[in-house]
Amino acid sequence: MIVAGQALRPLRAMPGRDAVEVIDQRLLPHRLQMERLATPQAVFTAIRDMWVRGAPLIGATAAYGVALQCNTDASDAALAASTAWLRSSRPTAVNLMWALDRMARVLGPLQPQQRRAVAWDAADAIAEEDVLVNAAIGQHGLALLQAAAARKLQNSAGPVQVLTHCNAGWLATVDWGTATSPIYQAHAAGLAVHVWVDETRPRNQGASLTAWELAQAGVPHTLVADNAGGHLMQRGQVDLCIVGCDRVTARGDVCNKIGTYLKALAAHDNGVPFYVAMPTSTLDLGLSDGLAEIPIEERSAREVTHLQGLAADGALVEVCLAPEGTAAANPAFDVTPARLVSGLITEHGVVPAQEAALRQLMKGRA
Amino acid sequence: MIVAGQALRPLRAMPGRDAVEVIDQRLLPHRLQMERLATPQAVFTAIRDMWVRGAPLIGATAAYGVALQCNTDASDAALAASTAWLRSSRPTAVNLMWALDRMARVLGPLQPQQRRAVAWDAADAIAEEDVLVNAAIGQHGLALLQAAAARKLQNSAGPVQVLTHCNAGWLATVDWGTATSPIYQAHAAGLAVHVWVDETRPRNQGASLTAWELAQAGVPHTLVADNAGGHLMQRGQVDLCIVGCDRVTARGDVCNKIGTYLKALAAHDNGVPFYVAMPTSTLDLGLSDGLAEIPIEERSAREVTHLQGLAADGALVEVCLAPEGTAAANPAFDVTPARLVSGLITEHGVVPAQEAALRQLMKGRA
Repeated sequence: MIVAGQALRPLRAMPGRDAVEVIDQRLLPHRLQMERLATPQAVFTAIRDMWVRGAPLIGATAAYGVALQCNTDASDAALAASTAWLRSSRPTAVNLMWALDRMARVLGPLQPQQRRAVAWDAADAIAEEDVLVNAAIGQHGLALLQAAAARKLQNSAGPVQVLTHCNAGWLATVDWGTATSPIYQAHAAGLAVHVWVDETRPRNQGASLTAWELAQAGVPHTLVADNAGGHLMQRGQVDLCIVGCDRVTARGDVCNKIGTYLKALAAHDNGVPFYVAMPTSTLDLGLSDGLAEIPIEERSAREVTHLQGLAADGALVEVCLAPEGTAAANPAFDVTPARLVSGLITEHGVVPAQEAALRQLMKGRA
Repeated sequence: MIVAGQALRPLRAMPGRDAVEVIDQRLLPHRLQMERLATPQAVFTAIRDMWVRGAPLIGATAAYGVALQCNTDASDAALAASTAWLRSSRPTAVNLMWALDRMARVLGPLQPQQRRAVAWDAADAIAEEDVLVNAAIGQHGLALLQAAAARKLQNSAGPVQVLTHCNAGWLATVDWGTATSPIYQAHAAGLAVHVWVDETRPRNQGASLTAWELAQAGVPHTLVADNAGGHLMQRGQVDLCIVGCDRVTARGDVCNKIGTYLKALAAHDNGVPFYVAMPTSTLDLGLSDGLAEIPIEERSAREVTHLQGLAADGALVEVCLAPEGTAAANPAFDVTPARLVSGLITEHGVVPAQEAALRQLMKGRA
């Protein structure tokens, strides 16, 4: 996407193939700062500590972690060790496992001395495919937005009102985003869209990343507390919801940022379509019951009790919101049962959140 | 309640009847600071700017605002003007209207020179009745907690798990709280209770007030982001929800802090009982459809985009969470339809959220 007149991605390989550069997303929206990652260890830290986040971006970044490993030691043992270690950096998003598995499949049959160049090519391919996949998701989602606009025109003027949760924007991918891709394409096509941005506590990826992205692109949007979405839907102020996902099971249960389930319940209660933008790399056909089978990452209590923001003097300051010593729980994801999902927007089209449809979609594509 | 060994209330009349003293709740949990309010203007500001908040406490504080008006000018014209003005300080909580109406009914028939002493007596009566009402709510709610504990014993050990939203604690009332009263009484009775405290964005009354109250009282609790409640209920970690309310209609629709509706949906979806602690002063039999008829206060966007907390150096610092200039919407309340409410815990007992039951309850009590 274009930021301040320049094309920008949250992840890019350096031309010398000796490092990748990422946006340190912990500093947004207050600072736009790039960081250079030159080792698999640096990649691990960047994923675990959420310099980069978002299921597709985590996958692509981890693939470059394997490529960086090949720069110094491409032996079977070294690759197996770094892959296992990268796999443990975040437990929930399946794209991480998907990208690491794909790298292992490509590199496994090769001699160690052949691996370096192939690893960089394979990581580049994962990144470029992500861009194409998200562009395709945008096209299929655009049709949903156009249909919503057509329905809306019968009753009222005004833009199509989309609610989104967390950041499934271009910052969560290599480009375009997943949930935001239809929005960016609608905006480019001249379809009036307004986005309700859930701030998405506790890490505030909505307030800090989605609001920043949409502002850069000139898409009208309004920030709301996560508590407000039900109220907006009750009042007819949301035409559809589009969110991203971190893992989707064979039967269509959707694991996504904590709080997604509450919005899906409200959408269902108010007849608002609830769509999930899902690159097929996020589909885990090996799992069925999302609630029982997807591991949910429990993050630090400090993310709930403390928060970083920009003080009046321009300093980034961390403040405490709770009484000293307050215990906090911080489950990072929840599972939205398939019954609450209107459809999955994939790169191949919109499919129902149903096992037969998902297995059919993937048939022959493996 | 007892804080640091001393009995403390969030509102008390000064012995000379020349002022009231309130806790400035904007500074909690970081500072416990009392403020003296000596004029109706000061009372208006304290309510509007949320030094005091919570439906019952707003009502009692406003009553003292009328008493303070009588200290300087108790004429019909002056009383009518201050009452109208106090009425406009917050639009949603019906207790404000209820308390001002009650003051007007008591003072109206009197000569101006008789009004001052009667006004202070009447305001004291409203405050003391609130304490008794909340104690009675606690007793009726305690029975629900005991029943939940008995059900739970059949399956597992561990405390009764209660989820609450916002602060309907003693800081929201003159004493005891509404939603917290059963919890305090259970704790005093030796029944093991653990409370999930929703932080309650955007003003964080859960993180800053409920967590503080519970810590003072030694009640085990864990702070969570508002997004987490659905996940906890899906995992069987919540035995019942108890929340407060700002206005309840004749058919049992509940207006309460924004986000309450989302928790009620999750409770319904997971078979978790969802109770609303409701002093009958919060019942507005003049309204039926909560969604159509209750005015919802829209507060400042800055409450969403900025937040005050305690910096590492001990200073209270306001930080910005969003890109500069981000638009935000801030509806302060939402409406939970009666169909999602398991029961209303009143001072007269637990009643269903149904019109016939509510009208029967109030019959002859007016």
